[in-house]
Amino acid sequence: MKTVYSEDHRLHAARMELIEGTLKPAVEKPERAEIVLARIRETGLGPVEPPREFGTEPLGRVHDARYLAFLERAWEMWTASGRDYEALPLVWAIRGLRAVEPEAIDGKLSYFSMDAGTPITAGTWAAARASANVALTATAMVRDGARAAFGLCRPPGHHAAADYYGGYCFLNNAAIAAQWLRDQGAARVSVLDVDYHHGNGTQAIFYERADVQFVSLHGDPRTEYPFFLGYADETGAGAGEGYTINYPMPFGTTYDVWGAALDDACGKVAGYAPDAVVVSLGVDTFERDPISHFKLTTPDFLQIGRRIARLGRPTVFLMEGGYAVEEIGINTVNVLTGFEEEA
Amino acid sequence: MKTVYSEDHRLHAARMELIEGTLKPAVEKPERAEIVLARIRETGLGPVEPPREFGTEPLGRVHDARYLAFLERAWEMWTASGRDYEALPLVWAIRGLRAVEPEAIDGKLSYFSMDAGTPITAGTWAAARASANVALTATAMVRDGARAAFGLCRPPGHHAAADYYGGYCFLNNAAIAAQWLRDQGAARVSVLDVDYHHGNGTQAIFYERADVQFVSLHGDPRTEYPFFLGYADETGAGAGEGYTINYPMPFGTTYDVWGAALDDACGKVAGYAPDAVVVSLGVDTFERDPISHFKLTTPDFLQIGRRIARLGRPTVFLMEGGYAVEEIGINTVNVLTGFEEEA
Repeated sequence: MKTVYSEDHRLHAARMELIEGTLKPAVEKPERAEIVLARIRETGLGPVEPPREFGTEPLGRVHDARYLAFLERAWEMWTASGRDYEALPLVWAIRGLRAVEPEAIDGKLSYFSMDAGTPITAGTWAAARASANVALTATAMVRDGARAAFGLCRPPGHHAAADYYGGYCFLNNAAIAAQWLRDQGAARVSVLDVDYHHGNGTQAIFYERADVQFVSLHGDPRTEYPFFLGYADETGAGAGEGYTINYPMPFGTTYDVWGAALDDACGKVAGYAPDAVVVSLGVDTFERDPISHFKLTTPDFLQIGRRIARLGRPTVFLMEGGYAVEEIGINTVNVLTGFEEEA
Repeated sequence: MKTVYSEDHRLHAARMELIEGTLKPAVEKPERAEIVLARIRETGLGPVEPPREFGTEPLGRVHDARYLAFLERAWEMWTASGRDYEALPLVWAIRGLRAVEPEAIDGKLSYFSMDAGTPITAGTWAAARASANVALTATAMVRDGARAAFGLCRPPGHHAAADYYGGYCFLNNAAIAAQWLRDQGAARVSVLDVDYHHGNGTQAIFYERADVQFVSLHGDPRTEYPFFLGYADETGAGAGEGYTINYPMPFGTTYDVWGAALDDACGKVAGYAPDAVVVSLGVDTFERDPISHFKLTTPDFLQIGRRIARLGRPTVFLMEGGYAVEEIGINTVNVLTGFEEEA
């Protein structure tokens, strides 16, 4: 399996994050991608190729134009107002407040975000653009006939919705990939999200559509970020009714339960008979992940790859979360090698 | 004029705040109230009395029961989950996300807040309760015939809505006072909010009611916190149509413009003919306030008091913002002495 990788992810390297009420050194850091890359080379998974430039058109198929314009200019506006450190928003238009885009950059950060834990830096836009190109290049390999490809995306994407960022995500790589496949002629695409956190952005983007199925296994939002989406009763709306399927699971979930949910989820994907599958591949389900609470072990990740392979569908893997830096390499590549063994 | 003051405000002393994207030493700190108190004693404004205990019933007339239960238990739940530092929320249920109350404390903090700049500490609930008792005790003095009284509230209140906190505010002292006056037989009450920031919580609480008028002068939300409420086109809804009046003004506003707006605002209050006026008294309109952008000078605050006095209505002053600590005493007391001179 080919991997697509760009060093431009390093342009987004936040110093600090707001985690559990305090600023801590960022866990979503460049080393994550570099360790996965090193493991790919060490195991000989396959060639590593740079991304092609797809331009902004595929981004605009998923994200609002005003949001993209904001992301492109945010750092410039932030620093123009006298700040030389990472930008964080402060206040949000929750119930009873008006969702209007303010003029000041502080207000725009607030309007276009959902959390306080996702800093914007000088290189965020460039890195997010490169990450989307990584996703699209891997997706194009599959469109062109590859059984599978891996986009080593960073920053990740699945928390970003059409017009807001959050959860370390700015551009929704999986949604951009799925939409691009549709625009290239695929009739149906499934997004299978195995990251520990619910892919609220991906769900929101496709919630009322029947042409992209969204299936997610994740920490129960009653007790886990992002808290406000990912419940089992969210099944899609309008034309999309039935095409969103959520498997929220409690803290401490081990592979016997998680793997059964994956098996059920794969049954739903098989029933949908998609032309291609986009896997939002987070490995923060790992037992020693520093910010997550599932209990998957390193060998379990081989099983994940094998099960997904048995779907028998062209498959694009796109990197999402995973913060246990030492093990992110072996766990991620275990999914991919498990897939290759079974494919 | 009597002042009501409780030392219990010191129980809420946040160490850090998220300001403009970085954690800085808290500007909403105990010294604020202590310097105002010292100035009151220095100028001989009048007696300083402790608050009476009003219980939780007046709070429940304004705030949701679930919200009050959350505030009471938040610190206990936060520390029970292993954290020993100030609690901050992380993610918000903006557009497209579901406003459901999660089970975990991290989720509850997010659900019941609107910003990331308002820490909850061990003493927050006790201090907020004391602050509401300060407001109610001052309000009772006016109900009992005093021309005016000053509640030296801390923490402040006007950003807190029926079911969320933010902007350093937990219980909406002005709304609690206005509602209590109504419950004590006042037919109409005006809340005149002269704090630099829009009193979004107070507005939201009374937005659909004709029995409490809300009039606010503040920094234009297009460029200033709280960004998502306080626009001139917000005039009330339903039975409340016409009873919300906002005067948003740009950065750099001086007293020639601000005072003219106050004059107009007082005309609206006079036209409403309230039985009493509750003044949300912030002095962060001051030219050297560290987080605000108006240009009022120390003598201007005398003028504010005089103009409010000319309304000729029983008046409760309740402390809101003001962060230029050295000058918060003289500026606040200037409003009160200006009032007394003219009353």
